[in-house]
Amino acid sequence: MNGKFIVLEGLEGAGKTTALNTVVAQLKALGVTDLVFTREPGGTPLAEKLRNLIKYETEEPVTDKAELLMLYAARIQLIENIIKPALAQGKWVIGDRHDLSSQAYQGGGRQLDKAFMQMLKESVLGDFEPDFTLYLDIDPALGLARARGRGELDRIEQAGLDFFYRTRARYLELVKDNPKAVIINAGQELERVTADIQSAVQKFVNSVGKTTSL
Amino acid sequence: MNGKFIVLEGLEGAGKTTALNTVVAQLKALGVTDLVFTREPGGTPLAEKLRNLIKYETEEPVTDKAELLMLYAARIQLIENIIKPALAQGKWVIGDRHDLSSQAYQGGGRQLDKAFMQMLKESVLGDFEPDFTLYLDIDPALGLARARGRGELDRIEQAGLDFFYRTRARYLELVKDNPKAVIINAGQELERVTADIQSAVQKFVNSVGKTTSL
Repeated sequence: MNGKFIVLEGLEGAGKTTALNTVVAQLKALGVTDLVFTREPGGTPLAEKLRNLIKYETEEPVTDKAELLMLYAARIQLIENIIKPALAQGKWVIGDRHDLSSQAYQGGGRQLDKAFMQMLKESVLGDFEPDFTLYLDIDPALGLARARGRGELDRIEQAGLDFFYRTRARYLELVKDNPKAVIINAGQELERVTADIQSAVQKFVNSVGKTTSL
Repeated sequence: MNGKFIVLEGLEGAGKTTALNTVVAQLKALGVTDLVFTREPGGTPLAEKLRNLIKYETEEPVTDKAELLMLYAARIQLIENIIKPALAQGKWVIGDRHDLSSQAYQGGGRQLDKAFMQMLKESVLGDFEPDFTLYLDIDPALGLARARGRGELDRIEQAGLDFFYRTRARYLELVKDNPKAVIINAGQELERVTADIQSAVQKFVNSVGKTTSL
């Protein structure tokens, strides 16, 4: 029986790391213990080298198109070499970001052409997609204040606030009518955020429970 | 007055390096002295890092799609940050490979989907293209024997002979009816190859002579 691919999405400072711990604890409580963790961009030797170029290139300006192409190069390596083999072995894969990040940051934030974005996604990924996405929604001003409190921002995170408002708007646009995604209000108190995540994970596991080897 | 972008294309062992020297000598003899040299993949700090990943990644299998996406990421960096600014300054740019290599190697050799290749080229490069391409045509068996004589082959050059026959066939298909390209028979004796290149360069320079600052 194939595993499931669960993805955490959201702006900087939305609380993805804390949410990841909550998801893992909830899955384990429900008996899902064979987990693989990925992060994007990255997660394979080549994809991690691309991550470094994408986030920390300083010797020259990085064009928006090169950024997007490197993201997809890293993503297809991760899917083919890590995610698909893990799912085929019945493992559950928990992803820190996936394609929705490109749609939101490069499509919404950078305003790259929608037709180009769509074509690239379809041509490179085919019909591969997460089984379930938790989008942690937060006001960019609040999220960035939190992220800045943790230290230095990378190249992409140094964009202006407008960039992040466009990114959030695209996130919301793409998630709101998606039956495989939920919006978590990450601006609430931590206890509420945690409870909402636990509830969402439980619903998802219940919905697929009969088809897995649990 | 904008400069011109001349590209050398061909399989391993076709003699691109010798041809480059011939082109440069001929251009200088004709009074074109303000030259910029590029190679692909590569030619900018980021593109050279991508070149290294594309040609020498050994830690994991590189998917055909990731290879293609990295090539285009490197290409758009080179075009935007080096080639276009040089042309705008009236310099002539001499490229060791350009987009035709991707069409031939990844499209022909790797047999990536033609519609995907076409879309990617149009979306990433727009209508940017070389003013003149010299394609050095050689039988793959002969070319590879020459290249092997020079030392170790990189990851792409280690493909089987069939790969290179498909690559050559795609090169010929794309060049034969292209008014901005010529086919040089690189299997001839060196003197004949050199004479053919000199003649082709002279014709090209004459054809654009009235529009340049010569």
